[in-house]
Amino acid sequence: MSDGIRMYTNFIASIDTRLRNPKWVIEHLTRSKLKGDGTRSSSQFTEDAGVGARFRAKLSDYRGTGYDRGHMAPASNHKESQGSMDETFSLSNIAPQVGGGFNRDYWARFERFVQDTTKSFDDVWVVTGPLYIPRPGPSGWVLEHPMLGQPPQMVAVPTHFFKVVLAEQGDASTAVAAFVMPNSAIPAEYPLSAFSVPLTSLEEVSGLTFFPSLLDDARRMGLDAAALRWQALGRADAQRARLAPGASPPALLPPPPSLPGNAVVKSAVGAAVTAVFQGSNPAHLCDKLQCRLPAEDFWKGPGGGASRDRKLQRSQSAKF
Amino acid sequence: MSDGIRMYTNFIASIDTRLRNPKWVIEHLTRSKLKGDGTRSSSQFTEDAGVGARFRAKLSDYRGTGYDRGHMAPASNHKESQGSMDETFSLSNIAPQVGGGFNRDYWARFERFVQDTTKSFDDVWVVTGPLYIPRPGPSGWVLEHPMLGQPPQMVAVPTHFFKVVLAEQGDASTAVAAFVMPNSAIPAEYPLSAFSVPLTSLEEVSGLTFFPSLLDDARRMGLDAAALRWQALGRADAQRARLAPGASPPALLPPPPSLPGNAVVKSAVGAAVTAVFQGSNPAHLCDKLQCRLPAEDFWKGPGGGASRDRKLQRSQSAKF
Repeated sequence: MSDGIRMYTNFIASIDTRLRNPKWVIEHLTRSKLKGDGTRSSSQFTEDAGVGARFRAKLSDYRGTGYDRGHMAPASNHKESQGSMDETFSLSNIAPQVGGGFNRDYWARFERFVQDTTKSFDDVWVVTGPLYIPRPGPSGWVLEHPMLGQPPQMVAVPTHFFKVVLAEQGDASTAVAAFVMPNSAIPAEYPLSAFSVPLTSLEEVSGLTFFPSLLDDARRMGLDAAALRWQALGRADAQRARLAPGASPPALLPPPPSLPGNAVVKSAVGAAVTAVFQGSNPAHLCDKLQCRLPAEDFWKGPGGGASRDRKLQRSQSAKF
Repeated sequence: MSDGIRMYTNFIASIDTRLRNPKWVIEHLTRSKLKGDGTRSSSQFTEDAGVGARFRAKLSDYRGTGYDRGHMAPASNHKESQGSMDETFSLSNIAPQVGGGFNRDYWARFERFVQDTTKSFDDVWVVTGPLYIPRPGPSGWVLEHPMLGQPPQMVAVPTHFFKVVLAEQGDASTAVAAFVMPNSAIPAEYPLSAFSVPLTSLEEVSGLTFFPSLLDDARRMGLDAAALRWQALGRADAQRARLAPGASPPALLPPPPSLPGNAVVKSAVGAAVTAVFQGSNPAHLCDKLQCRLPAEDFWKGPGGGASRDRKLQRSQSAKF
């Protein structure tokens, strides 16, 4: 009864054999790991032979759908070697994403924002994954999303995507944040902090538990309060600018009152990460850094390096 | 990274912490295990304290929804002791089912049919679980189902339910069948065999793999052919009688051509069951028994015993 864990050189993916997407992908980023010669132009998307043939996502599932093959662990985080970059093109690291306005734009800038946290922190752990979030319908809550491919072997189109970032600077400083974005075009000016969500809500809608060895109930709920504060600020900014995100804000309510931590069954991500928080409580990432996305043309500038052709190549994701 | 396995005296449940339903429940039935004094009237539905408080189904999630709390391992299979029966009322063995015409009627007769296989076979393994099956929409396939409770802690309403039955008579005779039914009222006269499905299709739509140590590709596909034959016969009978099931037939296509069995990642149910099939291939259950449901008032007759009050008590599931 395997949990469907796939180990790669620089990331780990857990596979959902029903929805044929990753459940989550975890990476460890450092400044030095981000350097290297790997380029997207040498990589090709590949089916994962490590997942049963009847249960893996197939290249043909995406063909002609209009959806991009969206990376969970971004290719640009894994330039260390061409082999490492190639691994990120395994469909076990991929889920269907809207291209224009999302994968090729807002989400790409979000990935760069996360990468840039390594400028301030020595070690950054990132968990990325798809979400399937219910919406209110005329007669109650409904979960609804497209399915790609041919039944009964289908790939789900997620309604949203999440990233959880845990950043450490030695033992002195640790920061955490969780973001949830709709799988749709998002206006370029929309404030990143508006997508900050309480980790508690993300855990409950995903069924996952993030960094449980580090984040006990008290710490998690302290971070939740900061997350809601940043979310409110971001949404207020957006409202003043009369911006609407591509879809309704994520249907995530504020965290519930503290509950006893007697969980026996939970699906824990990053449980092995235990070596921090000896002394102080973690801060919310937006209290440590400016939670602002890089410029829309960040990939043009110096330092863009091998990813100069990034947007073009991302747009090719759907044409194959 | 737990798979969320819950061990009970006479059944095992795997928990879906996102959809807050079981993924599957497996039981082992024998004639002797079916005897006993346990009664439903002494049992109460209970939340499962073995699942994290934020990730378990709650009694309040069902309240006022109109859905029955439907057993995966049926209470009537576990009369051996009151304790065994009580365990089947754990919400980790429960999913939302339509009451009238399904849980209280067709599904109840189906459970009795499965129980009655113990009259012909010494050992019967049964796997039961919810399904979430896509349907064709105006612009492609869509997965859609209601969600109960309050976000972000919600319980999914399955579109369908399955049972896989593996029945053994010593080493001499083994029979297997898989059935999928819509979570909706089904006309009482609808033939059971119409709900026979290829195991291959059920595996692919659920992401699960059933009895992989026993059912290699060749054996599974032999059973698939028989399943499709019985399904066609049942549907033809239904058409002649102008019966329509409560929902469209399950969107399960015929099995694909044989594929290499190189699966590394798969979620296997019943992998420990290996002690049969030394000599002969398994038969389809409908080739061994008449795949016909018992009478609608089966619970009234002799042998109904403690379950005489069954239908009444099932109907109370929604009123609490």
